[in-house]
Amino acid sequence: MNSMLKLGLAATLIALPQMGLTQEAAAEAVPSFDEIGPYIMTTLLFCMAGFLVFFMAAGFAMLEGGLVRSKNVTMQMTKNIVLYSFATIMYWLVGFNLMYPGDGWLVAGWVGPFFAMTELDPVGVAAADAALDYASIGSDFFFQLVFVAATASIVSGALAERIKLWPFLVFVIVLTGFMYPISGSWQWGGGWLSEAGFSDFAGSTVVHSVGGWAALAGAIILGPRLGKYGKDGKVTPMPGSNLALATLGTFILWLGWFGFNGGSQLAMGTVGDVSDVSRIFANTNMAAAAGSIAALILTQVLYKKPDLTMVLNGALAGLVSITAEPLAPSLFGALWIGAVGGVIVVLAVPMLDKFKIDDVVGAIPVHLLAGIWGTLAVVFYGEASLGTQLLGIFAYGAFTFTVSIVIWLIIKGTMGLRVDQETEINGLDMAEMGMEAYPEFSKS
Amino acid sequence: MNSMLKLGLAATLIALPQMGLTQEAAAEAVPSFDEIGPYIMTTLLFCMAGFLVFFMAAGFAMLEGGLVRSKNVTMQMTKNIVLYSFATIMYWLVGFNLMYPGDGWLVAGWVGPFFAMTELDPVGVAAADAALDYASIGSDFFFQLVFVAATASIVSGALAERIKLWPFLVFVIVLTGFMYPISGSWQWGGGWLSEAGFSDFAGSTVVHSVGGWAALAGAIILGPRLGKYGKDGKVTPMPGSNLALATLGTFILWLGWFGFNGGSQLAMGTVGDVSDVSRIFANTNMAAAAGSIAALILTQVLYKKPDLTMVLNGALAGLVSITAEPLAPSLFGALWIGAVGGVIVVLAVPMLDKFKIDDVVGAIPVHLLAGIWGTLAVVFYGEASLGTQLLGIFAYGAFTFTVSIVIWLIIKGTMGLRVDQETEINGLDMAEMGMEAYPEFSKS
Amino acid sequence: MNSMLKLGLAATLIALPQMGLTQEAAAEAVPSFDEIGPYIMTTLLFCMAGFLVFFMAAGFAMLEGGLVRSKNVTMQMTKNIVLYSFATIMYWLVGFNLMYPGDGWLVAGWVGPFFAMTELDPVGVAAADAALDYASIGSDFFFQLVFVAATASIVSGALAERIKLWPFLVFVIVLTGFMYPISGSWQWGGGWLSEAGFSDFAGSTVVHSVGGWAALAGAIILGPRLGKYGKDGKVTPMPGSNLALATLGTFILWLGWFGFNGGSQLAMGTVGDVSDVSRIFANTNMAAAAGSIAALILTQVLYKKPDLTMVLNGALAGLVSITAEPLAPSLFGALWIGAVGGVIVVLAVPMLDKFKIDDVVGAIPVHLLAGIWGTLAVVFYGEASLGTQLLGIFAYGAFTFTVSIVIWLIIKGTMGLRVDQETEINGLDMAEMGMEAYPEFSKS
Repeated sequence: MNSMLKLGLAATLIALPQMGLTQEAAAEAVPSFDEIGPYIMTTLLFCMAGFLVFFMAAGFAMLEGGLVRSKNVTMQMTKNIVLYSFATIMYWLVGFNLMYPGDGWLVAGWVGPFFAMTELDPVGVAAADAALDYASIGSDFFFQLVFVAATASIVSGALAERIKLWPFLVFVIVLTGFMYPISGSWQWGGGWLSEAGFSDFAGSTVVHSVGGWAALAGAIILGPRLGKYGKDGKVTPMPGSNLALATLGTFILWLGWFGFNGGSQLAMGTVGDVSDVSRIFANTNMAAAAGSIAALILTQVLYKKPDLTMVLNGALAGLVSITAEPLAPSLFGALWIGAVGGVIVVLAVPMLDKFKIDDVVGAIPVHLLAGIWGTLAVVFYGEASLGTQLLGIFAYGAFTFTVSIVIWLIIKGTMGLRVDQETEINGLDMAEMGMEAYPEFSKS
Repeated sequence: MNSMLKLGLAATLIALPQMGLTQEAAAEAVPSFDEIGPYIMTTLLFCMAGFLVFFMAAGFAMLEGGLVRSKNVTMQMTKNIVLYSFATIMYWLVGFNLMYPGDGWLVAGWVGPFFAMTELDPVGVAAADAALDYASIGSDFFFQLVFVAATASIVSGALAERIKLWPFLVFVIVLTGFMYPISGSWQWGGGWLSEAGFSDFAGSTVVHSVGGWAALAGAIILGPRLGKYGKDGKVTPMPGSNLALATLGTFILWLGWFGFNGGSQLAMGTVGDVSDVSRIFANTNMAAAAGSIAALILTQVLYKKPDLTMVLNGALAGLVSITAEPLAPSLFGALWIGAVGGVIVVLAVPMLDKFKIDDVVGAIPVHLLAGIWGTLAVVFYGEASLGTQLLGIFAYGAFTFTVSIVIWLIIKGTMGLRVDQETEINGLDMAEMGMEAYPEFSKS
Repeated sequence: MNSMLKLGLAATLIALPQMGLTQEAAAEAVPSFDEIGPYIMTTLLFCMAGFLVFFMAAGFAMLEGGLVRSKNVTMQMTKNIVLYSFATIMYWLVGFNLMYPGDGWLVAGWVGPFFAMTELDPVGVAAADAALDYASIGSDFFFQLVFVAATASIVSGALAERIKLWPFLVFVIVLTGFMYPISGSWQWGGGWLSEAGFSDFAGSTVVHSVGGWAALAGAIILGPRLGKYGKDGKVTPMPGSNLALATLGTFILWLGWFGFNGGSQLAMGTVGDVSDVSRIFANTNMAAAAGSIAALILTQVLYKKPDLTMVLNGALAGLVSITAEPLAPSLFGALWIGAVGGVIVVLAVPMLDKFKIDDVVGAIPVHLLAGIWGTLAVVFYGEASLGTQLLGIFAYGAFTFTVSIVIWLIIKGTMGLRVDQETEINGLDMAEMGMEAYPEFSKS
């Protein structure tokens, strides 16, 4: 931040062309914006979209923290912040290079899938050494990294209020270091699904369904919360402790989704690309709006009362739905894609309860089911065939669900997955963490 | 997000100039940054400012959710998220084209004021087809859309704790689809007030006063909360349930205001424009700071104790005040414009109580009165005459207040506006929503 | 926001080159992007990084509001919002020009250290009059301003729950108007430490340690909270009232840190600079992740239970640690720098308790101790010698601690620093502010 030094350096660079260099040498020293503008803009896009998607980690934390009971909030906060941290380290250690093995410019540090630490561009990389037709490695790595964390956040919500911390984190490590990067590579790493013509712009399937399948597997192995499902088929509501927080979380996720989908344009340095980014912003926003209104109206009709948690999940389902193809649809297309997402959530939540699958925050309807819907909706825009989309959905589902079941079972058989009954009844916060989130508020 | 495909495409584009094309053809394929740079930067400005202003919806929700009593928080959250969603749909369906009818590049979809759905630039629009002297339609639409939602958020705060959900939403639909776009068109659509020389850079009047007038009309028709004003003239304080949340909301609004005012420069692709954006950032920040300090000092002097809710509203009043002219003033100018805004709020809140106008969150002082002040302050910078500014203030007030009164009365006469007494006493959350925001915290 | 006028103006500018002007004149009217691109990008960087760092004020407020007891939350919110406001005004009035006296382009308004109000570039500054090798004054001022506020926020956390409002604000005025700018000038203003080779990229020492030293001095003069330390050496835990809020605050700070460190690159208009910004993003994120995991593991090992507040402070300590050199390290380097930061916090918190220094939120371990560590870690990257770094650490410590002690003593001797015992026991909110933050929640 030394502006004096900085000015000096800049002055030198600026002065170069006038210092008697031949025109050729000067051009080498200060490349034209026509040459470097796209690289600068796309790197900026990844940085900006990256910090927005990073903030989704806070959104998930607030959403989930608001939807669990107050006795489990400290645990939920802990899980959400450290899952992001473990995702960061695992994706650096192996995930990124495992997912994008074919990128020619990404060779440093690559010594096999289990020791493949990401290395960034050198400090002050010269234009001649940079991927001028794309973006800096640091920006690309950061942008891809925040995606993988989202997958893990989806799992943490569904399994809340009964899973132990460390077994959960072991699953996160496997998911973010290996499972997500391997399956992600099929599509975004230029793998077989990409070659087969599967289309998933920003990850309805690659990110959200994957998180949803892992969560579904976990919810089945883990079983429902004590007292959630009575023997007579009665479902006991366990209302979230802080709906203001859950609403804040939804707004933060909505905000972050502009980066999630907009950044997935992967370029911002041409008229077409920057216009597409803005088109994606408008469509993403529309789908969320439509999802929330669909849930509002449907809960009003079905239950005579609008349901805030459904409205929040409806907005999120709208966002997940548009994620597979946020660019091609018109605003009207985005509206109905999002609205169907909202309807799916309202209908699916009670259905999961029928199967006694206890998904604390509604993550499976939002991320898995709306993710499938969004992936199928791509077909309407001619970006892929129905068969290919079904193939992709099936491939991600079969792989992620099967491997997740195996991992969850291994963890269950070794470390154990679930807290004991007394801990679950008293809340995980005091027993596992020794710390209440709201020590002065909760009814005794 | 398929970086392989992307790289291939980029390589093709980059390669074009070297593939034996004539220089002319190549220039057509890859326009120079001198030609497209401003378009890219301004489109980016709208996207960035747009997501900041979007986030103001969360700010309003947190501010209002923190200032109502806990028994009405679920309702307040619901209103704030779905009002944004309805604003999105209405502004797409009619509002945007109603407000900006004269923009030549915005013709598609326009078939009259009641069927005027916005259509975006085509995917990957070519430079030749883009509005190179402005920005992409998607970015402009998104940026304008988040403004209209702010207007509706202002109304939701003032009328909290007693208005029914659906009648409120009907008003939101009329406000965001018709009222705001029609009156907005007078100024920003190049209409008669713009021609008359009225000046309102980012909307002290066009956005904030309009929201304030609509709220005032609603507050009059709706009447105060039960027990707020005694027969002896006694005013019963009804303290907000969560001042941490209200503070967070204020910070989020302050953050969003950088987009609100900065984006209203409407250009970022020249030295002058980007410098002006930064000038606006600095002035906007100064006005908010001055407003909060003015309220802090004035409440300390008047009541011997500083009042946090006044400090928060003082900051917001500072922001509203500078919104009509955030560019021309020096930092010192911004300071005193903002400080006067803070003073206005502290003095106006008890005055409204004298008239038994029950404005739950102080929206009318903040958005209407400080909005009028900010619009008048433009005169000091020679951007408009006092007469013209008064004309604009009067025109927006007369139109919005009158039409709002009529709409509120129609809604009252048909659907009813207000919950019954028992619901109001017990809180809207259980009766109308069947869901408490803090089921484990509230004193029974 | 009048797009008609704007379009007209833009059309004029665009049309200029085709209006029969000589090529020379046209070039003067519309400078090439090669000339103005870096200025535009760097100004944008400061605006963007600036709003991210601004939002850290909200992060500090939420973190501190979540870690104090509910009876002091209104006070903590008030302090955090108005300290930012006073920092804004003081930094404008004297601080900025005091800190950067040597910048040639910053002369207007300079009439001595005590009347040195910042003046911005004129509206619509011409390229010929702008600092084309740097950025607009408005953007630079805004970016520097949000840094000074962070320093004051650090102090407010450590001294919470017992200090009076106005005496605290007087210290803030001195700190942000004089102390921070004077010592900051030694390094970033091109002063003696900068000339001596001291290296502190984004302010581990210049910002964070300075805040930490001022907080330490205050904590010593002020003394611990009543009942915190028993005569038998027993430390009474005083758990924070809202860990969800504290977690949100940490996430917001983490978000803001991308701006804090990324913006400190001070340039974004070349391939090297924008790549460096992204490199800084990736490293900053890694250090935070590593700090939080280090704290998680260490508290698990030491106390058999992971400690959320330590995890949060561990993330922040990782961020402070990487702040002195976020660019040079590899991701692996960032990992271990951050991890050591997390370890420092876990070990230092009980040590402070041994000295009966009552730091309510852990600000001294996080900002002072991790700041020192981060400043020393620069040596590993060859950016400075150990001796120089120690000299800088010592100089900032001696100056800030000594002057702070004097100022705190003067304030104590004149206005008084601390609330009376009854107020402290009952909470500052009712006695000092007359307003509870959660009037419906708290047990009583």
